[in-house]
Amino acid sequence: MTTAALTTEELLITTTLKSWEQWVGRTSQFFDSLSDEQMLTEIAPGKNRPVYLLGHLLVVNDAIIPQLRLGEPNHADLRETFLDQPDRSDAKLPPLAELRQNWKDLNVRLTTLFAQLTPVEWLERHALVSEEDFAKEPHRNRLAIFLSRVSHTAYHLGQLRLQPK
Amino acid sequence: MTTAALTTEELLITTTLKSWEQWVGRTSQFFDSLSDEQMLTEIAPGKNRPVYLLGHLLVVNDAIIPQLRLGEPNHADLRETFLDQPDRSDAKLPPLAELRQNWKDLNVRLTTLFAQLTPVEWLERHALVSEEDFAKEPHRNRLAIFLSRVSHTAYHLGQLRLQPK
Repeated sequence: MTTAALTTEELLITTTLKSWEQWVGRTSQFFDSLSDEQMLTEIAPGKNRPVYLLGHLLVVNDAIIPQLRLGEPNHADLRETFLDQPDRSDAKLPPLAELRQNWKDLNVRLTTLFAQLTPVEWLERHALVSEEDFAKEPHRNRLAIFLSRVSHTAYHLGQLRLQPK
Repeated sequence: MTTAALTTEELLITTTLKSWEQWVGRTSQFFDSLSDEQMLTEIAPGKNRPVYLLGHLLVVNDAIIPQLRLGEPNHADLRETFLDQPDRSDAKLPPLAELRQNWKDLNVRLTTLFAQLTPVEWLERHALVSEEDFAKEPHRNRLAIFLSRVSHTAYHLGQLRLQPK
């Protein structure tokens, strides 16, 4: 994207979207760097395994789509395993290769959706706030959800990077 | 701040500044919840102690001030200990009470500085990019530094929360 002719509003959004690329990109690189065995090894004694955090980030970022009122999520069926339940060594998980591919596919879908929103559309209501509350609190908009999920991804990347290699 | 009469640009910035409050606020609460003894206990075997992460976040967030070209940092003298060097149990650290107070004072200073910038000023060059490069890459602006430091704070909060309590 050329940024030469952007308005102030557009450049604010362009800059903000780059933070998604940056943190999700780093997180993807980190997952790619782990062998399947490492994916199944706790990041610290008694703590989550990377496979759980991959599924967790997949579910949380997938949920951005309905939260931004942009369509249906792809992975609502994984919420129970990766959001409602903690990690457990005896949990029945989807095949690792499938989770890895789902993560890549989700990121393509999200990047496409994000690029379609105008600055004014970014400031529209997100789905977790009522129209009544939004009228009083206009900062509870799509951009707020987006920013929260970027830092949530960074939060778990920090944990992933603690794993002994 | 009332948001009723804000322009699109202003509401984009207001929304973004709330992500600072959110993540730095959570991180402050977490540090406040730790006893001095817990601050000196590794978050996981062989990993950083919370006291080191407090100093590290203090130094990195303090450096935002010159990076945004808004003044001199307060804690350049701590860079060696908390940025250039890794955590070491025999490192000579400032008193914990002093670090805790510095963190609170810095957050007051940063919040005040951030609130003074207009949307157009947020899109001005940051100090880590040359004027020549910035002309070609206008997304390397103050907002980009800000967003990076929000998620960097979240990154380390994720690690801090792993500590057994």
